[in-house]
Amino acid sequence: MLTIEKVKDAQKVLSDIVRKTDLIHAQNFFNNAEIYLKVENLQKTGSFKIRGAGYKIANLSEAEKQKGVIACSAGNHAQGVALASQRNNIKSTIFIPATAPISKVEATRKLGAEIKLIDGVYDDAYNACVQYQKQTGSTFVHPFDDEDVIAGQGTIGLEILEQLPDVDAVIVPIGGGGLISGVAYTIKQLNPKCKVYGVQAQGAGSMYQSFINKKILELPVVHTFADGTAVKKPGQLTFDLCSKYVDDIVTVTDDEIASAILALMEKQKLVAEGAGALSVAAAMFDKLPIKGLKTVCLISGGNIDVNILSRVINRGLLKSGRLSHLTIELLDKPGQLKEVSSIIAEHGANVIRVRHNQGGENTDINDCFLKISMETKNAQHFEEIQKALTAKGYKITSNVQ
Amino acid sequence: MLTIEKVKDAQKVLSDIVRKTDLIHAQNFFNNAEIYLKVENLQKTGSFKIRGAGYKIANLSEAEKQKGVIACSAGNHAQGVALASQRNNIKSTIFIPATAPISKVEATRKLGAEIKLIDGVYDDAYNACVQYQKQTGSTFVHPFDDEDVIAGQGTIGLEILEQLPDVDAVIVPIGGGGLISGVAYTIKQLNPKCKVYGVQAQGAGSMYQSFINKKILELPVVHTFADGTAVKKPGQLTFDLCSKYVDDIVTVTDDEIASAILALMEKQKLVAEGAGALSVAAAMFDKLPIKGLKTVCLISGGNIDVNILSRVINRGLLKSGRLSHLTIELLDKPGQLKEVSSIIAEHGANVIRVRHNQGGENTDINDCFLKISMETKNAQHFEEIQKALTAKGYKITSNVQ
Repeated sequence: MLTIEKVKDAQKVLSDIVRKTDLIHAQNFFNNAEIYLKVENLQKTGSFKIRGAGYKIANLSEAEKQKGVIACSAGNHAQGVALASQRNNIKSTIFIPATAPISKVEATRKLGAEIKLIDGVYDDAYNACVQYQKQTGSTFVHPFDDEDVIAGQGTIGLEILEQLPDVDAVIVPIGGGGLISGVAYTIKQLNPKCKVYGVQAQGAGSMYQSFINKKILELPVVHTFADGTAVKKPGQLTFDLCSKYVDDIVTVTDDEIASAILALMEKQKLVAEGAGALSVAAAMFDKLPIKGLKTVCLISGGNIDVNILSRVINRGLLKSGRLSHLTIELLDKPGQLKEVSSIIAEHGANVIRVRHNQGGENTDINDCFLKISMETKNAQHFEEIQKALTAKGYKITSNVQ
Repeated sequence: MLTIEKVKDAQKVLSDIVRKTDLIHAQNFFNNAEIYLKVENLQKTGSFKIRGAGYKIANLSEAEKQKGVIACSAGNHAQGVALASQRNNIKSTIFIPATAPISKVEATRKLGAEIKLIDGVYDDAYNACVQYQKQTGSTFVHPFDDEDVIAGQGTIGLEILEQLPDVDAVIVPIGGGGLISGVAYTIKQLNPKCKVYGVQAQGAGSMYQSFINKKILELPVVHTFADGTAVKKPGQLTFDLCSKYVDDIVTVTDDEIASAILALMEKQKLVAEGAGALSVAAAMFDKLPIKGLKTVCLISGGNIDVNILSRVINRGLLKSGRLSHLTIELLDKPGQLKEVSSIIAEHGANVIRVRHNQGGENTDINDCFLKISMETKNAQHFEEIQKALTAKGYKITSNVQ
């Protein structure tokens, strides 16, 4: 049974292998609430998962430790299990779908795990993992639906209460629900007045659906940019704990998540993965009644592929009107490039790329196109520049990339 | 005179407006030393500058406070002065060259400063600032060559010694030298055995040159990606303190800085600006004798334009062989795209973009080109793929973007 003593025991057991991550007051981050960030993206392995896996593994008997542990994951859980095993000097075998990003596979391997790359998707890797478990008798470390794992994640709740005793609300990302189960249980035991809210990605709202329908539901498909939370069905334990201890669950869109990732990078200098930014997205886009409250957003992890990060940056800049693209049709006569440049400069925008193409399928043979990319202040600023160009007789044929 | 009591006084005075930033053990970050990161990029305003400016402003007389303060900067110093002024309820006027990035100007304005955008470069803004100072009698807050400013930065030294009492070495970025002067002075007073090393960008090595030549030298031009350190001439105070208390100064290239920024993002989930990553670059590229030592890398700031960050990511991925581009000449007959894709897939690389262009200036009319972008493990992996394609008779016409 989950008890507060168990969570406190986990804290003691984990003290050697887990960092007590900072709680950062994010001043001027949003206007509506006093936001604090619990930065589990700065945890060892880049996510909170080491806590649950670490406590689970520490609690194994010597006989169990001899046989090692196995897990199925392409992500943070894999690295958490691998590091916890390494620290406990036991063998770990991680089953990973062959389609997983190279960077995650390599990171797990570096932590000493034996990797089994399985052709197919997660379910195939999971089946192979179960098969292997039967053959070897090693212990399967569940990513969320396990009391020890949940107690381990609950240690974050203890740290939050210690770092900000008068906290009013805590916002926690949900995938399978292990993290929020541990945090909500712990906080409600010690400070029942503090609200605990969950956030899921709209495309992977299995706990959200189950929570509002008051029964466990399985989604036919899950699809979200917050890949760490793509779980089709909550666990029994985690569903029960959420039903009992969580005040409300909301969802956010992939675009909202991307905006939150960009805001965390620009304003807080923190790299968060999709799942990690869910809590901030919920606060930024006013999904929860936290106005005026001391609110902790739990950033669960930062393991995002940098290629994807680069795309998130571009999308975020476009969306907020800070990166703008214009295609202008020019008459092919001298001086036009100069005039267009002058108009843009007068408005204080910063041109970062110009392409000048003569001709095109649907144009007059004398015409040519000017494609300009520029840094602008916001959407209104971009609007003003377009108006100024139109007023001078230029024809804008596109204002998207 | 700079005294350790002054630094301790600064710590007391600043306790309300400065965050005590975390010292993060960066495990498995490099193999050669035990690295700890002092994360001043997570400081308020995204850099350490609030410390020096905060102490300077707090020490002003009431009469001086009445007249307000002025500063000349497009970067971190501007935001530090603006926030410190806001907290002390005094007026700040910041002179910024009109060419400065919009994002930095807006960030400073949001902190309550009055902004004077001056046409031209830094020197023009500085001249306008001096003029204004004479007219108004307000106090000019120097970015580095000021005892109070240096004492403020020295508070980071106190924190490091408290957070890691048995520290062996501290690596500090240098621009004008205010940060390292404060840190080196403080550390050498309290723990003379601890080494203090400075790092400058190769293109802006004014303190480096002055240090090794044992006299203040002025560089004719400075050019570096670490724009926060682009200072032509060290201060008198900072030069004297560096000469006395700094063990050695080294330089790093812009490419090394970019690699350090990428490593900080990927492995430590931290956003650092060019100047901020200097210390990590020096450790990564073995510029200093820190083997086996408990070494603190001071990350001075994280205010980097996200557009630039996006470019740093791409460059870093290309350089480390994790993003690779190939142009292959194909005979325009069926099945070739499939075969090329198979070869790449067999080698475990992940294709992220394909462009298929028929014809080109110097090609046979029957030929066409396949441009492939893919994620690879490293340079050797990319090499293997190229060999496999060549062995099958494909002609690789380019292996850069």
